[in-house]
Formats: sequence, C-alpha cells, structure tokens
Amino acid sequence: MELYCERGYDNTTVEEIAGRAGLTERTFFRHFADKREVLFGGAGALQDYLVTQVLDAPADQPPLEAVACALMESGEVIFEERREFAKLRQAIILANEELQERELIKLARLATALAGALRQRGVPDPVASLTAEAGIASFRVAFESWVADSTGRRLSQFVRSSVDALKAATAAN
Amino acid sequence: MELYCERGYDNTTVEEIAGRAGLTERTFFRHFADKREVLFGGAGALQDYLVTQVLDAPADQPPLEAVACALMESGEVIFEERREFAKLRQAIILANEELQERELIKLARLATALAGALRQRGVPDPVASLTAEAGIASFRVAFESWVADSTGRRLSQFVRSSVDALKAATAAN
Repeated sequence: MELYCERGYDNTTVEEIAGRAGLTERTFFRHFADKREVLFGGAGALQDYLVTQVLDAPADQPPLEAVACALMESGEVIFEERREFAKLRQAIILANEELQERELIKLARLATALAGALRQRGVPDPVASLTAEAGIASFRVAFESWVADSTGRRLSQFVRSSVDALKAATAAN
Repeated sequence: MELYCERGYDNTTVEEIAGRAGLTERTFFRHFADKREVLFGGAGALQDYLVTQVLDAPADQPPLEAVACALMESGEVIFEERREFAKLRQAIILANEELQERELIKLARLATALAGALRQRGVPDPVASLTAEAGIASFRVAFESWVADSTGRRLSQFVRSSVDALKAATAAN
C-alpha cells in the first residue's frame, strides 16, 4: 500500500509490492489475483457483512434504518481499526481514474446486494433499490468525511449524520 | 445500433456499423471516437441540459424538486421521442458487463455535475451530493421502468413516481 502512494499505482510492480511485504512474487500471487486485489480484496467480506446485518435487523425496523444500522455497524466492526489503511487507500484511488471507476462499481454492487437483502425482508421495488442506493450514497459521503477527519469522530457517527442529512434533504421537498 | 443487438457488442466491427449506417469507415470515425461513442455520445449533452435546468430553477424550489423537475424535463425534451433507441441501447448494455460499468460511470458523473449545480445555487454539502445521488438513483429506476413499459406511460411520469417513492421511503424512517 505505501508503495502505491510513493510511486503511483501504475508505476508499482507486483515484485516491488511483494518485496515490501516480505513475500516472494509467487507467494504474493497465491494471495492476490492482481494489484487491484490489494485495494479491493475486502469488498466481498464487506458485502456479506452488510447483507447479513440487513437480513438480521428487527422485523419492524424501517428499510432505510436497517441499511443505516448495517453501515454504522460495519464502521465499528470493520473500518474503525483500519483508519490508516483506509486513508492510504483513498489517496491511491483518488490519484487514478481507473481505480475510481473500480470503486464506483464496487459501491454499485454493494447497493445491488443491499437491495436484494431488503427484498428478502419483503420490501417491494422500487423502494428496495432506492433505499439501498440512498444508503450507499450516504455511506460514500460519510466515508470521505471520516477519512479526511482529524478530530477522531467515528465512521458510525459520520454515517448517522449523513443518513439524517439525506432524510432532511428529501423531507424538505 | 441494430447490429449490436443482432451480433453482440464484441462481435461488431466499426466497418459493419459504418456500412449499416451508409457511411465509410473514415466518415464514421470523423463522427464517433469509437464504438462506445454510439452508445454514450449523448452523455455530455444530457449533462449540460440537466445542469442548465437546475441552475435556472426557481430560487425557492427545494433542491430535490429542482433535480426532479430537470430530470422530468429531460424526459420530455430528450428521451420521449427516442424511446426505441433507448430500448435497443438498454438491451445492448445489459448484455455486456463493460458497458454496464461504463453506464454506471456516466451516471456517477451526472450526479457529480448535478451536485455542482446545486452548490452553485447555494445548497451546502453534504446535502448537495446526497440530493444529486438520490435524484440520479430515482432516474435510473424510472428509466429502467420506462424502457420496459408497454403501456405508453411517459418517462417524466416514471421519474415523478420514483422520486415520490424515494421521499416516502426516507420519510418512513
């Protein structure tokens, strides 16, 4: 990860990344399919976690709250202890258009998976899709603020504020 | 466009597309940078139209309504007379993962542009970003329903329903 920041994503070879991590190139490839895997390897686990949280939410919890709580929980369980990694990763992604596109696609897949979980809870479309997309949009905004923040506020707090801002913005119409 | 549908995007050469359109390959390239341009060439004009509509909206119109009205207007002015093209284009995009990614990126850029227009109207962040993303999510849902519809309902009506569904979904929390 540090190498990407120093040299730029395009100029970093797998050999260099492996060397920095104290691995041979072969061992590295056993762990990661390619360079992108270092940056996007956690996407599957995050998606599984969020889907499970939404499916396990109290039956009477409104859809957007179920999504908001899943995202806040992911902050506590997954992201909070990885703040430095998240900061570094964000800087790398912002410096490369292809990676920004990859990140967008990852977020779109997350929204699709969350919409599926909401439908399993009996939420009809288009409410399921719209709620999932609104939740992911709130999360993206919250995540960017959290990564840029230096006051120690937690990601879960940023998610709460962001979802509440969305509610206020749509209610004001 | 028809060729993409018959043969699949990956199996269609520029020469064939140009031939079908009654153009030489050279003339074709003067018009379109590549195959993608046929499918995504309208993105810039749509973005300019939506941004202008949002900037020109009445000063007292709430942000999400300004975005909703711009999207509804684009239905009337841009899309309604191109329904058959839109149907064909959607079928091609759904058949190819790379094109789906390209479409996602186009929609994300639209949301970024709309957020910029809202900020110019004095809407602060994160409300500007969240409103723009919510609007684009509503539009995507509406567009898919419109393309699949065979009852003659207009895109602007689908956009209205979709935005109202989003408001109800966020208010229910």
